[in-house]
Amino acid sequence: MASNPACIFCRIVKREIPSRILFETEHCLAFLDVGPLSEGHTLVIPKYHAQFLHELPDAEMADLLPTAKKVAEAIGCKEYNVLQNNGRLAHQAVDHVHFHVIPKPNESEGLIMEWKQKDVSADRMDALRKAYLKL
Amino acid sequence: MASNPACIFCRIVKREIPSRILFETEHCLAFLDVGPLSEGHTLVIPKYHAQFLHELPDAEMADLLPTAKKVAEAIGCKEYNVLQNNGRLAHQAVDHVHFHVIPKPNESEGLIMEWKQKDVSADRMDALRKAYLKL
Ligand SMILES: [Zn+2]
Ligand SMILES: [Zn+2]
Repeated sequence: MASNPACIFCRIVKREIPSRILFETEHCLAFLDVGPLSEGHTLVIPKYHAQFLHELPDAEMADLLPTAKKVAEAIGCKEYNVLQNNGRLAHQAVDHVHFHVIPKPNESEGLIMEWKQKDVSADRMDALRKAYLKL
Repeated sequence: MASNPACIFCRIVKREIPSRILFETEHCLAFLDVGPLSEGHTLVIPKYHAQFLHELPDAEMADLLPTAKKVAEAIGCKEYNVLQNNGRLAHQAVDHVHFHVIPKPNESEGLIMEWKQKDVSADRMDALRKAYLKL
């Protein structure tokens, strides 16, 4: 399995670095984030080392969402965000795919977002769809 | 399969409301978000109606991440965020589970977040883990 000896999350998977593990399955591991945005903030990671989601084989993804769901249930948070960042600009700090499960207990804790919609015309949206699908 | 006649996403699945579909699998549908944060902003949804991730049966989750990956590849975005919101406070606007795939082309477009870490002591983190696992 793809593993990187210099990667902090690969080392957590191998128990070379301690972490507060909540769940482990064949393909993934869930542990408390050491820099939480709210109490209960947990990371769910594939054991397979890939920097970006689009580099992760489908088979290695299978356990991730069922485990994120178990995390949400264990923490007992009613409202929460599930977030996976790809690239520095997109706020990825560790180059190993990870899903944040972030409880949202109130306005000032948890994930705080600015939802700034762009004005994209219907024609432009149609053209984008065709370009993506190479139609 | 769980479906809600009043739900806009269930109606998109049934083609009662038009959308710009990119991909469809047995369990999920991917279509362009009509209120994009950046060009290419796409939603990946299970066909099964559930409001929150923790209410979605595991079998209905299987196609979601492989499809999100296909979306990222089709759009050709290098950096992007995958986001799933649960609850109004957590910025969920439609009460049917949906994963946003949001390209992050630059600082001012795409998802803008404030990453405000809390100061939680190691002891408190240990106690939280025990409480979650009912140890
Ligand atoms: Zn790694
Ligand atoms: Zn629905």
